Amino acid sequence: MHSVLCDKLGIEYPIFAFTHCRDVVVAVSKAGGIGVLGAVGFTPEQLKEELDWIDEHIGDLPYGVDIVIPQKYEGMGDMDPAQLEKELWKMVPEEHIAFAQKLLADHGVPEWPDGTHSMGLLGWTEATATPLLEEALRRPKCKLIANALGTPPADKVKMIQDSGRLVGALCGRVKQVKAHKAAGLDFIIAQGGEGGGHTGDVGSIVFWPQAVEAAEGIPVLAAGGVGNGKQMLAAMAMGCAGIWTGSLWLTVEEAHAEPAQKESLLKASSEDTVRSRSWTGKPCRMLKNDWTEAWENADNPKPLGMPLQGLVSGDGIRRTAKYAAVGECQKVAFNPVGQVVGQINHVESSRAVITRLITEYVDALEHVNSLMPEA
Amino acid sequence: MHSVLCDKLGIEYPIFAFTHCRDVVVAVSKAGGIGVLGAVGFTPEQLKEELDWIDEHIGDLPYGVDIVIPQKYEGMGDMDPAQLEKELWKMVPEEHIAFAQKLLADHGVPEWPDGTHSMGLLGWTEATATPLLEEALRRPKCKLIANALGTPPADKVKMIQDSGRLVGALCGRVKQVKAHKAAGLDFIIAQGGEGGGHTGDVGSIVFWPQAVEAAEGIPVLAAGGVGNGKQMLAAMAMGCAGIWTGSLWLTVEEAHAEPAQKESLLKASSEDTVRSRSWTGKPCRMLKNDWTEAWENADNPKPLGMPLQGLVSGDGIRRTAKYAAVGECQKVAFNPVGQVVGQINHVESSRAVITRLITEYVDALEHVNSLMPEA
Repeated sequence: MHSVLCDKLGIEYPIFAFTHCRDVVVAVSKAGGIGVLGAVGFTPEQLKEELDWIDEHIGDLPYGVDIVIPQKYEGMGDMDPAQLEKELWKMVPEEHIAFAQKLLADHGVPEWPDGTHSMGLLGWTEATATPLLEEALRRPKCKLIANALGTPPADKVKMIQDSGRLVGALCGRVKQVKAHKAAGLDFIIAQGGEGGGHTGDVGSIVFWPQAVEAAEGIPVLAAGGVGNGKQMLAAMAMGCAGIWTGSLWLTVEEAHAEPAQKESLLKASSEDTVRSRSWTGKPCRMLKNDWTEAWENADNPKPLGMPLQGLVSGDGIRRTAKYAAVGECQKVAFNPVGQVVGQINHVESSRAVITRLITEYVDALEHVNSLMPEA
Repeated sequence: MHSVLCDKLGIEYPIFAFTHCRDVVVAVSKAGGIGVLGAVGFTPEQLKEELDWIDEHIGDLPYGVDIVIPQKYEGMGDMDPAQLEKELWKMVPEEHIAFAQKLLADHGVPEWPDGTHSMGLLGWTEATATPLLEEALRRPKCKLIANALGTPPADKVKMIQDSGRLVGALCGRVKQVKAHKAAGLDFIIAQGGEGGGHTGDVGSIVFWPQAVEAAEGIPVLAAGGVGNGKQMLAAMAMGCAGIWTGSLWLTVEEAHAEPAQKESLLKASSEDTVRSRSWTGKPCRMLKNDWTEAWENADNPKPLGMPLQGLVSGDGIRRTAKYAAVGECQKVAFNPVGQVVGQINHVESSRAVITRLITEYVDALEHVNSLMPEA
């Protein structure tokens, strides 16, 4: 398909697959799209291991890495990660930790083996994100870096572009599109409120064309609500240069998630998701469950901001992932996913998903052409 | 354009324009779409006057009428409208009326000339809606009836279809699509959460294709977020039979709104709307302002259900409409509109809107065709 990003990246279809699973990255790139590994949640050592594996299995094909490089937190820019984490923990009220721990205990979620209640800051701060970025930039086949939250700092943009890679970032508001453009990004991921993970509240059908207009020629990838080829055609009709998909890859054959977690996703309808601040501190779309409801209840503690809420919830993320099928784990598990989850009802291979998207796309294009009166 | 509804209605483009202004109804039908008059808010006498005017000015072209026929309220089905209203008022707490009146007074909204604080039930109940429906069915050029909220009762569906007209209804959830289909409706209006007025929370890009699938062949009109031809092409690509637009017509030349109200709409961005229960009791998208915020505040009374909240807010609707430019009226005015409002920034004629939609549609279709590799 003709698309400026296909040409720049040497890929067949402008289908970008965000995933935390290295197997999916490889399978998507091999099927003609491009896999993008979400690196948040990995330590630099873990990321090295994942990228080694990808480099070994992907042949000569390109892939991408997605990180979160927030702007520096006020007054803390020069701290090392351990010191920063210590300072941040001081700002977390005891009440919040106790509430989170009680929610997990009440649902029979086993303790982490070493009995600790913190998984640390992960890649949520600039200090922890930089080593991840550096690891990615050591890989010649890693051809793009995406920032999942906000405009990356200027020095990071320069570092990525100087290395010959493309850099892009997600956003959900027109003013963020403009900020991304002003920062000189190579592409912009415009995510409508339907999307999974951190998301705004303007719907894709409204936001995409506004983003394309505000980007003034910078390629825009459509995110939020794309799970079939009709939706992909809709995105291209509105001027997008491709699609950025995430939810679609959570339940594919190659995805590593626990069966209980895949099952929760496969049976969910589009009405079963909610935008909630209860895990990361920022509005993030995920499956609605006891955890999200509990943090909405007016009698309970309110979610803290980012990154503090992440400290509160981190233990729950790892425990509900590890013990996904134990007790009522799924009722307090973190399952970020978009409304498109309602149209994903069975397991497919990654290749089958790409083939389906393209077949449906071509069919939909034929359909709209057939609606035109004969010239 | 080829569309089953174009053929059935004898119109050129499958563009349905919902509006409360008779002038817009006529202008849209004359430009090749079909105008649909929103009758809620009119008394039967007022509706008669509007339809007389439309019949006189529209030539031989078709138009539609949109009403709200809710299912009967429990135990009240047999009351006449005056008695029903009296019973309903008894259920409204004094606190709510006082709160609403204070909000209006605090913003300098003048009292209604006769000093009353109620505008009655309007067309929100079956008892008040039936005379409106009967008035519409006396008009040979009125070719379709749409129900704005829920599946119409079976006797009304039969009445409309027996008269040779098409009947359809809005919805925002797959289970409502199925209920509409089961009731034998002729078309279904699938509105994504971006839409103005009563709306669900699943985005258009996700909901439309699900609605088309659930409708199993019944034509689906795409509503929620369609304001340009690219968005219209997106809707058609997802299998819709046409578009149902509302926000687009609030600010056209022919629309009767007060200049202050049009101004509020023209300057609003897509992020300036909110889904709120504060006017009708059901989630309804509108411009965010002091009124919507006040009813969200945890310290204030919570919105009642439908139709009770409508009794509380009705006086505000008429006063802020009549005195749109007085004091801070706009800050407590009812301005139902979808997120698409952000792309409507200047006044156009209704004909220019239709022409623009079609031109943009054709351009977008050419664009997506140009992306395909040469066969």
